[in-house]
Amino acid sequence: MKPETNFDDHDFKKNGRVRTVILNPPSLQDNIADAERLTGALAQQLKTRHIYLDQALMPTLSRRLRKWDYQARCLFNIDGANLRVSHLMGPRDDRILAGVAVDLGTSRIVLRLVNLADGQHLAETSFDNPQINIAPDVLARIHFCETGNDGLSKLRSLVVDALNSHIKTLVEDQGLSVEDVYFMTMAGNTTMTHLFLGLDPHWLIREPYIPVVNRPGLIGTRSLGIKIHPRANIYIFPNIGSYFGGDLIAGILYSGLYKSEETAILVDVGTNAEVVLGNKDWMMACAGAAGPALEGGVTKMGMMAGSGAIDRIKIDPVTGEFKIHIIDEIQPVGICGSGVIDLAAALFKAGLVDIRGKLIPKHCQDRFSEKNGIQFLQVVPAKDSATKEDLAITQADLDSLIRSKAAMYTILETISTTMGISLADLSTFYIAGTFGSFINPESAITIGMIPDLPLERYHSLGNSSLGGASMALLSHTMQAKAEKIRDEITYLELNVNQEFMNRFSAAKFLPHTDPGRFPSVKNY
Amino acid sequence: MKPETNFDDHDFKKNGRVRTVILNPPSLQDNIADAERLTGALAQQLKTRHIYLDQALMPTLSRRLRKWDYQARCLFNIDGANLRVSHLMGPRDDRILAGVAVDLGTSRIVLRLVNLADGQHLAETSFDNPQINIAPDVLARIHFCETGNDGLSKLRSLVVDALNSHIKTLVEDQGLSVEDVYFMTMAGNTTMTHLFLGLDPHWLIREPYIPVVNRPGLIGTRSLGIKIHPRANIYIFPNIGSYFGGDLIAGILYSGLYKSEETAILVDVGTNAEVVLGNKDWMMACAGAAGPALEGGVTKMGMMAGSGAIDRIKIDPVTGEFKIHIIDEIQPVGICGSGVIDLAAALFKAGLVDIRGKLIPKHCQDRFSEKNGIQFLQVVPAKDSATKEDLAITQADLDSLIRSKAAMYTILETISTTMGISLADLSTFYIAGTFGSFINPESAITIGMIPDLPLERYHSLGNSSLGGASMALLSHTMQAKAEKIRDEITYLELNVNQEFMNRFSAAKFLPHTDPGRFPSVKNY
Repeated sequence: MKPETNFDDHDFKKNGRVRTVILNPPSLQDNIADAERLTGALAQQLKTRHIYLDQALMPTLSRRLRKWDYQARCLFNIDGANLRVSHLMGPRDDRILAGVAVDLGTSRIVLRLVNLADGQHLAETSFDNPQINIAPDVLARIHFCETGNDGLSKLRSLVVDALNSHIKTLVEDQGLSVEDVYFMTMAGNTTMTHLFLGLDPHWLIREPYIPVVNRPGLIGTRSLGIKIHPRANIYIFPNIGSYFGGDLIAGILYSGLYKSEETAILVDVGTNAEVVLGNKDWMMACAGAAGPALEGGVTKMGMMAGSGAIDRIKIDPVTGEFKIHIIDEIQPVGICGSGVIDLAAALFKAGLVDIRGKLIPKHCQDRFSEKNGIQFLQVVPAKDSATKEDLAITQADLDSLIRSKAAMYTILETISTTMGISLADLSTFYIAGTFGSFINPESAITIGMIPDLPLERYHSLGNSSLGGASMALLSHTMQAKAEKIRDEITYLELNVNQEFMNRFSAAKFLPHTDPGRFPSVKNY
Repeated sequence: MKPETNFDDHDFKKNGRVRTVILNPPSLQDNIADAERLTGALAQQLKTRHIYLDQALMPTLSRRLRKWDYQARCLFNIDGANLRVSHLMGPRDDRILAGVAVDLGTSRIVLRLVNLADGQHLAETSFDNPQINIAPDVLARIHFCETGNDGLSKLRSLVVDALNSHIKTLVEDQGLSVEDVYFMTMAGNTTMTHLFLGLDPHWLIREPYIPVVNRPGLIGTRSLGIKIHPRANIYIFPNIGSYFGGDLIAGILYSGLYKSEETAILVDVGTNAEVVLGNKDWMMACAGAAGPALEGGVTKMGMMAGSGAIDRIKIDPVTGEFKIHIIDEIQPVGICGSGVIDLAAALFKAGLVDIRGKLIPKHCQDRFSEKNGIQFLQVVPAKDSATKEDLAITQADLDSLIRSKAAMYTILETISTTMGISLADLSTFYIAGTFGSFINPESAITIGMIPDLPLERYHSLGNSSLGGASMALLSHTMQAKAEKIRDEITYLELNVNQEFMNRFSAAKFLPHTDPGRFPSVKNY
């Protein structure tokens, strides 16, 4: 699985955010004002209307245009229905116009520094979301805002300060200054975005789950306390609702699903599974709880994908030996989501669990143990682990994983059935997020978490939130597309009704009550 | 001649800038965000798209909407192609939402305070443009900006400070505070507008006469130093060029010419004569030097229309007695533009000047004198004047007036000929500005300054610049119309070629070389 990109050099040259315009010098026969001369030329080049100049550019405009022989480089943004030129430079000014794309994750924040003029990626950095120190997840952070001690401001400041400090380092490492950053884009889930903007998240988690805003749009960074160029703006990706945020809109943009001829699906797997199904003509989205098991969040040995995490496991069908891969190939600390899925698939294929996912003690042999009524399967013995304790999972962990995978599959089945699409007909199955970079689709198919498609139809998008944010950073048309994608998506409110529960029950087997759905798994 | 208005209570109710929206409360089936719920309801009411909320409204939006039971009053502006809600109030909040319309004249600045919610005019004030103390006219002020001592800032500060102080008094006299002023509109000529915005006026008076901007649009008042509500905006009327400013666009809006079925003309008479000819389908504008004589600016006894100015004169055909009307009916100080035109017409009708405008000494009798080769006609003897000197005009004053009136007529003839319209076919002849309020069309026809139309076709608009600014203040559709009017006008660059000079020469007679054009004057 290779990361996809659907914004290449050609697109950049056609749709880049920095343009050079060459104006006809004024004459008695052509005495339009300087501002409208510039926006008119740009309008012609961009084949659009409603182009305006920032007021701040006006006082120096006439003198600069004349000095530049009626040529200028323009950096522009989309502000609602207006295209707004925010900065002007001389045609031969070779200073770097930098931009920063932000993936505002609940756990991790990733920044990418780009050259807005040539599309080059200059540098990247990432750091833990400092809000973690106050509250680990979205729900806890929203509750923190409600404690009455100015919680929202505190959470907001944490992120703003961290962004300022990391942006500073990021640009200075490239020999630039923060004042060289003229534009930013940010994709994050709806709660993270609300917290960043200082918007009360109270109603996000209360029925009927209403955000303050769906389309935050373009905002002056100064008003948000972001210390880059004083007249820079930030574009915030729109959301469809409390549970379908800008990170996913960015992912859809990045994947190109919105312009696909054939029907495809994009899945972001985590505590919540977010799914969008569609093609260039229609898109339907839904989100549902899949359970933390898929993030490696339940089992005692669970951890985020990172150094020391077991991310891949196979069991030798002849020797029964566990073949374990550890990120950075050090002694294992724990197991991440993809490792858990690999493990479950391997156990199933090796006959160590039955089709209900229950450990079969006699097949597990020495690896099986039971203490205080809890059944364990040893994955790594204490002597080989970094913690010097057994790395083991319990039957409860496996049960939890099976509920999660069943939920995931049920969500996929529900949305595709709603649209009258057979999962087998999906042309492409995009998996977004870090999880998508690690997951082994074969294992996920083996446990019946995702449909039994030919493996080449699976595409990992990597950090598609950052990818989409970078595209919108480099191109105003991509910024406009993000808004258009949002507007074109129909959100399907998942009804946990009898039908859903029936599907869920059927999906709680390995790979499924109906093995005919997973012909490739039948062969084992 | 009565002032026209083409924006009445009906228009206000339909197009007012303050709207109450009643929202459907959110539900699981209708979980759009609060911001988009509000803008969506407003979009439906206003039958438009692209409505956005000011970012500053977001942090309190959700709490307020719920407190207000999903009802709100919105104040909105047009910002390019966006309609922007700038302020929100509770549905039962009865605070006055005030607005100020500004006529930014070169000599005089007029402010009108209105209630944006009900359209009521609350108060008005006017004061001399303090820039007069530095430089009397547009040209001198532009030169002052070029002295290098931060002239532009000085001129700008003078107007901004005066506006702040007079707005304060204006609103406080009504028991309001400056913070109650949420919106402003301003109409002024292109130079005055540039100086107010801090835009370099250097190129306005240099061929090919290029403004910095034609459509300044909507600007935050705080960035301009105007002390009203901190998040208030000001809408600046657009210009067509250096010599056809926002005051005239406001005048066209106020007159309704832009929507007239029949072809009409609007004339603003001053040192420059600005003319727009057209109807709902097309408009053509031009501007030309008419000479200061029409403003009473040349003759030694000339003055602006105001207390003590002779504004109307007749000569009794039997007794030859001068019947003089003075503004405020005090002793006369001088003569204003309309008085000069009346005087010239009266002198011509009474036979005291010939068709070339030359004084006929024997007909002038005692009123005629000659000193150092200069011929004088006494209008008011020293004993009756406030200055205790003779109020008299010279032959040179009359010559100057005749050149001015000939220029005016030639401009009218040129623009109408260009469009293939006969002046006699004009349905309405609007006269804008203070001058228009005082001028006696009969006298202006007598001297051949304006065409010999039935008097009922002449309409004085009064302060049409303030009138148009008030309309745009009260209604966003009027604001949009002002921009549309600007875009629809074709500007005719007056070519002072042989044809123009021939017309001008023919117009330098009273009323014209071709008296057949002025049948009503022939009767005298």
